[in-house]
Amino acid sequence: MISLKEITQTIDGKLKGDPDLRITSVNSIDKANKDEISFSVEDTIDTEKVKAGALIVSKDSKIRYPNLIYVAHPYAAFARLLELFFPHRRFNETIDPNAYVADSAVIGKNVSIGIFSYIGDRCVIGDACEIHAGVKIYHDVKIGKNCLVYSNVVIREGVEIGDNVIIQPGAVIGADGFGFTRLADGTPVKIPQKGNVVIGNNCEIGANTCIDRSTIEETRLNDYIKLDNLVQIGHNVRIGKGTAIAALSGISGSVEIGENVIMGGQVGVADHAKITDEVMVAAKTGIHGHVKKKGIIAGIPYQDLSSWKKSYAIFKNLEKYIERIKQLEKKIKKYEMEEDK
Amino acid sequence: MISLKEITQTIDGKLKGDPDLRITSVNSIDKANKDEISFSVEDTIDTEKVKAGALIVSKDSKIRYPNLIYVAHPYAAFARLLELFFPHRRFNETIDPNAYVADSAVIGKNVSIGIFSYIGDRCVIGDACEIHAGVKIYHDVKIGKNCLVYSNVVIREGVEIGDNVIIQPGAVIGADGFGFTRLADGTPVKIPQKGNVVIGNNCEIGANTCIDRSTIEETRLNDYIKLDNLVQIGHNVRIGKGTAIAALSGISGSVEIGENVIMGGQVGVADHAKITDEVMVAAKTGIHGHVKKKGIIAGIPYQDLSSWKKSYAIFKNLEKYIERIKQLEKKIKKYEMEEDK
Amino acid sequence: MISLKEITQTIDGKLKGDPDLRITSVNSIDKANKDEISFSVEDTIDTEKVKAGALIVSKDSKIRYPNLIYVAHPYAAFARLLELFFPHRRFNETIDPNAYVADSAVIGKNVSIGIFSYIGDRCVIGDACEIHAGVKIYHDVKIGKNCLVYSNVVIREGVEIGDNVIIQPGAVIGADGFGFTRLADGTPVKIPQKGNVVIGNNCEIGANTCIDRSTIEETRLNDYIKLDNLVQIGHNVRIGKGTAIAALSGISGSVEIGENVIMGGQVGVADHAKITDEVMVAAKTGIHGHVKKKGIIAGIPYQDLSSWKKSYAIFKNLEKYIERIKQLEKKIKKYEMEEDK
Repeated sequence: MISLKEITQTIDGKLKGDPDLRITSVNSIDKANKDEISFSVEDTIDTEKVKAGALIVSKDSKIRYPNLIYVAHPYAAFARLLELFFPHRRFNETIDPNAYVADSAVIGKNVSIGIFSYIGDRCVIGDACEIHAGVKIYHDVKIGKNCLVYSNVVIREGVEIGDNVIIQPGAVIGADGFGFTRLADGTPVKIPQKGNVVIGNNCEIGANTCIDRSTIEETRLNDYIKLDNLVQIGHNVRIGKGTAIAALSGISGSVEIGENVIMGGQVGVADHAKITDEVMVAAKTGIHGHVKKKGIIAGIPYQDLSSWKKSYAIFKNLEKYIERIKQLEKKIKKYEMEEDK
Repeated sequence: MISLKEITQTIDGKLKGDPDLRITSVNSIDKANKDEISFSVEDTIDTEKVKAGALIVSKDSKIRYPNLIYVAHPYAAFARLLELFFPHRRFNETIDPNAYVADSAVIGKNVSIGIFSYIGDRCVIGDACEIHAGVKIYHDVKIGKNCLVYSNVVIREGVEIGDNVIIQPGAVIGADGFGFTRLADGTPVKIPQKGNVVIGNNCEIGANTCIDRSTIEETRLNDYIKLDNLVQIGHNVRIGKGTAIAALSGISGSVEIGENVIMGGQVGVADHAKITDEVMVAAKTGIHGHVKKKGIIAGIPYQDLSSWKKSYAIFKNLEKYIERIKQLEKKIKKYEMEEDK
Repeated sequence: MISLKEITQTIDGKLKGDPDLRITSVNSIDKANKDEISFSVEDTIDTEKVKAGALIVSKDSKIRYPNLIYVAHPYAAFARLLELFFPHRRFNETIDPNAYVADSAVIGKNVSIGIFSYIGDRCVIGDACEIHAGVKIYHDVKIGKNCLVYSNVVIREGVEIGDNVIIQPGAVIGADGFGFTRLADGTPVKIPQKGNVVIGNNCEIGANTCIDRSTIEETRLNDYIKLDNLVQIGHNVRIGKGTAIAALSGISGSVEIGENVIMGGQVGVADHAKITDEVMVAAKTGIHGHVKKKGIIAGIPYQDLSSWKKSYAIFKNLEKYIERIKQLEKKIKKYEMEEDK
């Protein structure tokens, strides 16, 4: 139980209401009871139906409610409270005696490494990192401070990862890119993938997501990149700061994606495509070539969302339009026959 | 070798033929030889070409063949025989001394746990469960009776799983949902995912499939749900009894799917969509909003299969229709010119 | 540092230039400096901008440059040099004492097995194989010579794999196919998957890719098949020699794919489809039925790339065409009204 006063301090807000009210948890606005706190980003809610003990709202909110905390960003404040009421619990406290850590590896302060994990030669693991069970980190990998690597992740040789990165279970970082050439008789020959993967700070990599190493240079993810589960990042891809990519999307080799791009699920980007900053990509979109304008795109291949919607609305009714063409043809035919008389 | 009499008893059928015939195995109808048994759900097969020693057919079948076993559901009977002739073999018999099981975990009777597996604090594993090698089960997970968890599966903290559930290798249950908000400058802030995943009885989860935990409440899969490989289930999704989802499909956050829905592969469902019971979804369909009617849907975005097929048949020939528009324009032009004279 | 003379011998080429030039590495043509070698498959490059110490070109190249090595296949030669300058490093040298190898397993010469790996009863692992850490190989698996199995791969019981196969991290070979039947009340019943997976020589399987075992017979991949990451191969699929499938593609049950087929990413193939040799499939294509002709296909469902492009160009402008229909209707209406007068 935490008082509203303490909560207000934690989220750097301004309280209107009872500072001594005891809050036991956070919850969604339609589920929260009188001991719980929730939030609203909109003023249009029906407060009659709300049972929460207190609400976090934005600075300029007009909502009337017994206990309100005003903050700059209610949803971010709610995120802070989720962590406060449900604090992260470390997987284990130290280096498990049944983990393997190479003698030449350099392990920072306050690092925990779970059972059945493997840390290869010359790896550098920064302070406060938490490596869970069954993680396999090949030789010469560098991981920054305060990273969280969930169970059964595999990180291949030489990969570099920044600070505050979270890698969900089963992700594979640095597998070989999909590079082949074919001899005259069609036999495929593997192009060895000797490049690397470099990931910036504050990124999150989803469960079973794959980020391939490049042939020679680097596959590079800048800071604050968020990849959902089961995403494929091909070799030599570059992704700008703050970009988010939803599940089952595939980014082919040598693609360049700008900053703060938002991609829906199952998007596909063809090799060597370029996408400028702040593009929003609808789910299932197929992208090739160069997306030069900010805005929302959709379709296979992509076009502006608005024109795609118009085309699609017609597509759904194509039969009716074809019927109209047939009617026109019938009428013209009639005129032609009349003329022939 | 098993006699036809014994087989008939096993599958609760009625035999017309030689009860003493010895059967060595099961096979598909076009491959089975005289020592093998097969099945047919249809009466239209050419029995001249069949070499099987016996056939399982439905109760009211008109097929004529030397040895027939009549049952209510021939394919389900065939499934029983597959298990009879190729019995499941346990991965190991007990708890491997090189598995880690927390002292506070409660392990049922006749449970086997494979080498290099990890069972966290306060986990409860029901009777007759089989946990293979390299499985990582975080703290406070509850698993019912008679479950089969293949190698390298990861189950995160607090997840609840019913009885008779099968989880194929590499699946990840309970990873963080993909939840972020953005500050005014666009910087993404992680929304901690403190909810849970609850899976009912008799479900099967495919290889490398991911089911995310929700932000606060539960991602919930009811009984008899079958997920293929590489499926993504987002946070706070609810799926009804008996629903099956094919490979590489992605279900976004807070989606509600009814009972006995059948989804093809690579289907995408946008967040907060609702799908009613018994809908059939063609492969690659894109769904948003509310699918209220039973029936088959297809397309991106979805429409009824029949109208989608009509639209698509026209789409494939759009060039010809455009040519017809051009012809019409030419003719009208001719009339207009004649009028002008 | 290696002399141009030695490099020329390694790639079986013909040198025009300084045999004593010392080369330190390989690089892409726009990045290579004077100590590095690169390659060009085209004669149209601007050699003024190239800084590389030497270039590998094709036998009949007209490029003029100080140091040239002529070979039959420049990109394949480049692949050989990548391996020369960045030689493969074994994960470990022997069988790790903390790996489990069943007494009945037959392990070839010069095999290494990484820590926390498991090799089941009666497995046969060929000479010079390299099994990394955390790999789980169930009983009765056969692996040929010189295979490379990366960390956390799972290979289920009975799977057969040829020589020189590479399996990237997290791949799952031999999980149960997605086979269910439904009782009269809709309850799904699992069809036990008692068949196998057989993989030929010189194949490569991508990270987190899944290849399912069949119900009775075999899922079969011929030689030189290259699967990218996160690919799904359903039960009983057959794939011909030299075929390559890009990431996030899904091949449903009982599909037959010919030789040297090239598939882009996120392609879906419906069950029982057949694809003939040398078909090229654009990304995101949906295939059903029988693709009988060589050539390039695209679309959902597929058509020839050229006709799909025409249809799609019209689709993007459907609004304009509908406007033309409306104009025609207006004009016809005018005539009709004039006639009525």
